[in-house]
Amino acid sequence: MMVRRKASRTASGRAVVNLDILLRPSSIAIIGASSDPTRIGGRPIQSLIESGYQGAIYPINPTRNEIQGIKAYPNIRDVPAPVDTVIIALPQDKVIAEIEHCAAKGVRAVVVFTAGFAEHGETGKAKQNRLTEIAAQSGMRIVGPNCLGAFNADAGVWLTFTAAKQPREHKGFRFALASQSGGFGSHILKLANLRGISIRQFLTTGNECDVECGEAIRYFAQDPSVDGIIAYVEGLRTSEAFLEGLAIARANKKPIVLAKVGRTERGAAAARSHTASLAGSDAIYDVVFREFGVHRAVTIEELLDVSYAIEKRKVPANNKVAILTSSGGAGIQSADFAVENGLELPAPSASVRQDMLALVPYASTGNPIDVTAQLTNEPDLLGKFNSIVLRSGEYGAVYNFIGMMAGSPAIAQKLLDSMSKAAIEFPKVPQFISVTCPPEITAAYEKAGFLVYEDPARAMKALGALVKFANVFAAPVPAPKMAQIAAPKLAAGLKFNEATAKETLARYGVLSPPERLVATPEQAGQAAQQIGFPVAIKVASADILHKTEIGGVALNIDSEGSASAAVSQMQREIPALVPNAVIDGYLVTSMIRGGVECILGSRNDPVFGPIIMFGLGGVFVELMKDITFRRVPVSEEEANKMIREVRGFSLLAGYRGKPAADVDALVRAICGLSVFANHNRDVLESVEINPLVVLPKGQGAFALDAVVETMTPTK
Amino acid sequence: MMVRRKASRTASGRAVVNLDILLRPSSIAIIGASSDPTRIGGRPIQSLIESGYQGAIYPINPTRNEIQGIKAYPNIRDVPAPVDTVIIALPQDKVIAEIEHCAAKGVRAVVVFTAGFAEHGETGKAKQNRLTEIAAQSGMRIVGPNCLGAFNADAGVWLTFTAAKQPREHKGFRFALASQSGGFGSHILKLANLRGISIRQFLTTGNECDVECGEAIRYFAQDPSVDGIIAYVEGLRTSEAFLEGLAIARANKKPIVLAKVGRTERGAAAARSHTASLAGSDAIYDVVFREFGVHRAVTIEELLDVSYAIEKRKVPANNKVAILTSSGGAGIQSADFAVENGLELPAPSASVRQDMLALVPYASTGNPIDVTAQLTNEPDLLGKFNSIVLRSGEYGAVYNFIGMMAGSPAIAQKLLDSMSKAAIEFPKVPQFISVTCPPEITAAYEKAGFLVYEDPARAMKALGALVKFANVFAAPVPAPKMAQIAAPKLAAGLKFNEATAKETLARYGVLSPPERLVATPEQAGQAAQQIGFPVAIKVASADILHKTEIGGVALNIDSEGSASAAVSQMQREIPALVPNAVIDGYLVTSMIRGGVECILGSRNDPVFGPIIMFGLGGVFVELMKDITFRRVPVSEEEANKMIREVRGFSLLAGYRGKPAADVDALVRAICGLSVFANHNRDVLESVEINPLVVLPKGQGAFALDAVVETMTPTK
Repeated sequence: MMVRRKASRTASGRAVVNLDILLRPSSIAIIGASSDPTRIGGRPIQSLIESGYQGAIYPINPTRNEIQGIKAYPNIRDVPAPVDTVIIALPQDKVIAEIEHCAAKGVRAVVVFTAGFAEHGETGKAKQNRLTEIAAQSGMRIVGPNCLGAFNADAGVWLTFTAAKQPREHKGFRFALASQSGGFGSHILKLANLRGISIRQFLTTGNECDVECGEAIRYFAQDPSVDGIIAYVEGLRTSEAFLEGLAIARANKKPIVLAKVGRTERGAAAARSHTASLAGSDAIYDVVFREFGVHRAVTIEELLDVSYAIEKRKVPANNKVAILTSSGGAGIQSADFAVENGLELPAPSASVRQDMLALVPYASTGNPIDVTAQLTNEPDLLGKFNSIVLRSGEYGAVYNFIGMMAGSPAIAQKLLDSMSKAAIEFPKVPQFISVTCPPEITAAYEKAGFLVYEDPARAMKALGALVKFANVFAAPVPAPKMAQIAAPKLAAGLKFNEATAKETLARYGVLSPPERLVATPEQAGQAAQQIGFPVAIKVASADILHKTEIGGVALNIDSEGSASAAVSQMQREIPALVPNAVIDGYLVTSMIRGGVECILGSRNDPVFGPIIMFGLGGVFVELMKDITFRRVPVSEEEANKMIREVRGFSLLAGYRGKPAADVDALVRAICGLSVFANHNRDVLESVEINPLVVLPKGQGAFALDAVVETMTPTK
Repeated sequence: MMVRRKASRTASGRAVVNLDILLRPSSIAIIGASSDPTRIGGRPIQSLIESGYQGAIYPINPTRNEIQGIKAYPNIRDVPAPVDTVIIALPQDKVIAEIEHCAAKGVRAVVVFTAGFAEHGETGKAKQNRLTEIAAQSGMRIVGPNCLGAFNADAGVWLTFTAAKQPREHKGFRFALASQSGGFGSHILKLANLRGISIRQFLTTGNECDVECGEAIRYFAQDPSVDGIIAYVEGLRTSEAFLEGLAIARANKKPIVLAKVGRTERGAAAARSHTASLAGSDAIYDVVFREFGVHRAVTIEELLDVSYAIEKRKVPANNKVAILTSSGGAGIQSADFAVENGLELPAPSASVRQDMLALVPYASTGNPIDVTAQLTNEPDLLGKFNSIVLRSGEYGAVYNFIGMMAGSPAIAQKLLDSMSKAAIEFPKVPQFISVTCPPEITAAYEKAGFLVYEDPARAMKALGALVKFANVFAAPVPAPKMAQIAAPKLAAGLKFNEATAKETLARYGVLSPPERLVATPEQAGQAAQQIGFPVAIKVASADILHKTEIGGVALNIDSEGSASAAVSQMQREIPALVPNAVIDGYLVTSMIRGGVECILGSRNDPVFGPIIMFGLGGVFVELMKDITFRRVPVSEEEANKMIREVRGFSLLAGYRGKPAADVDALVRAICGLSVFANHNRDVLESVEINPLVVLPKGQGAFALDAVVETMTPTK
């Protein structure tokens, strides 16, 4: 298994084309062009014309001289000028030949709508592989197949047959949408429009024979005309561009809201069969999203709720929210959701409370703040309370539950007026409201600057996301964590026994107890004597993973004679039990007593590469799944966070009067394994150190067993 | 602390009035009646008139002879006939006097809208206590204060000033709504109406000076004109009527959908300050909801989503769902949500797949099923696929994601027609769809029998709830779990040392190791000899909870001399350290080796009474919170479920080659503690057995320590 990387040049040295040429082409040809603008070969032409695309348009159709008022050519080869980008709207059996023509002509990017490739059996897969090959050889980029194409509304570039048009002019927040699924990407696009969110650029990657979703995200992260990114991911094939994209977006303070499906095993299986993508472990995606401050939306509703909040460009100064209602029940609901989304609800200061009580002596002035049903008689009370709260500067955001009252004819206008006054006076503070009322009243609240949600749960989730983004963007961007080291790299296919595994890890700072590999009973006795009793003796063989089962482990050996006898017995018995195992010797090792047993390991995620795992040992990992993950490299700061985020951490901190464990030594072991795994990422399959015993402070942490596995070499 | 119970008779022997008289009165008086139908004293009269209420209406107003066309009286005393139910719409300072008049006249039930009672300081609390007193003395029921009243739309009874009127005639599913919050109850009522759900009866209990939410639920559970119950709960004061209500609803197969706020500590605190209710532990509410199959909705959106599904009266035959889409992405999304809501997605049988492939050779016929984009060309494909799936009988429900396509002018009508055909052909199977389209198309799908949700997550949550209800209603109703036993009950204030606690528990089947309470060093030596070495010796005193800290525990004693010496030392040293402790003697107990340490306990929840807690010992409970709860009494079946639902159960089942533990003995201990706690529920504060050691199968389970605490006696 190898982590795939994209080359920036083809084998023959041609530069691989940047996505810029796709989304900002000087000329566009449509192969399979149609005069009928409702057909997939006709709609892109209509869209290009309508949006005032400034470049050249070349309809390609062997049977027509003119299409939608534009001169047509029988074949891409006949176009009398260079062509940047081509749309292929042809039946599956004609696609490859035309793409070959495009490559030959020097076309820079191709969009293939056509389905029936890797998602349809072995023949389809072979055809898709041919597309991948053409892209790799020519440097020409291919989007799709089986996708909905792309658009850049700012440039009037429409390489898609979706009917959800975006206006060319746009003054507000500029979202780009990257989606692996064409159909679902289009669905999100339309829902966004219904919600008043304009998507300025759109790229669906479908089967990803060449251009992948991660590259689209990286492109949008770099593009100064994009303010934020919405993404829909089923499963990444490679992670390099994706991770770069997340890092650039964070550095450029561009929020990313992302739906990654396949959270459950069943969903992941469905995703694999849909796009034939490699599915990295879903848990690792979460690690990555947290690392870069990406908001993972569980539902599409949440994806849009959060995007809607982002679009308003109001940044909460902190995570403190004031909840104001005229219904105690709504206040309690909202308090639950606020806390569950990481928000705090401090009570207002005494002077703020006094100002409120001066207006309504019976008001609840804690937090939630309840202006009481008096609002029915004085519809401007809520606006007045909002002003008091906002003026105090004590809160990063304000939330009002108004509900049906917002549409109540008797008070609606006065309520809106007073609320709007407060909102306009403090335009920078995010002010969320929940109303259930006719759309024209909702629109009036939005116009005044409110973020409007019907349901308190959805409002609080969106506010929680804004606070998270604000924190991520305010934090310094972590520097590259670790330099590459000069040590030689492991060779693929290398096999390790326990002794060589521990020796190799020790060079990276993952230490083992004093120990020695011996060949004879006599040497075992001498080694035990030198190490000091008691010792353990274990058979050393890369072919034997379960040593105990075949009598390959002897513990608590307290004399030279016993040590020799133990090896004699192993020499006698083991070969008969595992006749094909190559036995490298016998490991005599000091018995370590006490300490806290941990498990430390690494495995190579098919998408994200080496992942470090840490947990307390035994039942904690096995029964409780009390384990935490990081991508490599892991900094000391992150290692400390990992250790503290497992639920069993108290055992290391000194549980029930026991001494605190040597957490610093544990940090060194985690970082050491991280360096090892990172350095050998191309060949390392997995490492398992179980147990790693952490002794009391100052006494170290030691690997009592270690298994290192490398990948089978690729021919 | 006592669990409050409602008497069915007053102290003077008058019967407490059933809620029937409130919701089906023969006559209604309105004190504070107004001619203005927009005022709270006017709207109920208008509503009664408009809805054609058949009983007598008596407006009460000292300044008017006639109100809204009906003869008015100056005071309730002046009404020349008996009055069943009275509405009080008066300022706070006039409420008590008028309620006293009502009681004197023999009124049966009163609804108090007025606020300013227990929610407003000590004076308000005192006034509310007076209302409670009047209700208790007279047997007259009081709803509120600080509530929105009640209605019974079927009977034209409107005792509320909410403007959300329900039509008198209704043929569909009949929901009743019980809410502790007037304002939020009204909000739910209106949202339900917007969703097309008719609420036939409505009761808000506000400050609950007398009538509580649980009683409303019980009433609705019994009323044959109610099919299902929606409830909004902030915190119950008592649990008896509530639990009876849940049991009756389950027996009558009436689904209950309930929002209980205060999930977080912050929310619970807000709830306490809002309604001054006792807040039982939120985790115990979950135990109760699961016990009776109540669906707890986290958001109001979910409350309505599930109610909407219930209202369609379509019962899934099993938890298998077929997901059909024309978008692979939507299928994956839906698969995740299906699994997360307890649904299964088996693939169709071979013959069903063949039938599909005959229509679309490239269709994905696993599950999710993808009819492919071919749907654009053949809009009746999805309906045809649905028919094939439904005809197979292999699924309890079907879900279609259609999205925007449902509104696409080119195909909308044909799609709807073919879908409707399948839906009408199989009217009993729940068929969920997600569409985003104009409301008239949504309505057409609903009319055809579809359950329509825009978002897949919401659809799957609702389907999951329907499956849960079907399972709960199909299961036999558990018989009362346990008869009361004849043993004498504990007295309040009784104090236990370890020896007496274990002795008492042993009578209920929670056994201890062989042990003996002794008074002298000499007796200790003899007892140790008889019990067999090694033994442990512990000081026995109800005043000493932390024995180890004061040298009150000696372990691994292996001779008569050591046993005597240990007691001598305790006699010498302990009195100096805890001079006020009464020492009852010294407990000599057999040292139990091996086994699995568990923790077993009971505490008295302020609302739900004794709760049994079980978990694996030590870090499992302390660090992992790996613990489970049940209300008492706990049946053997439930005890077995408890043991198996903790994550550390593998340790009892025989972890890593260790022998399986004596789970049967553990069941006996849990049930025994449950009988003890249930029998002494009026005085028992808590029991903690830590550890309870469970030995290998056949060897028993033993309490190694036990603390029993009773309540301080009330004078």
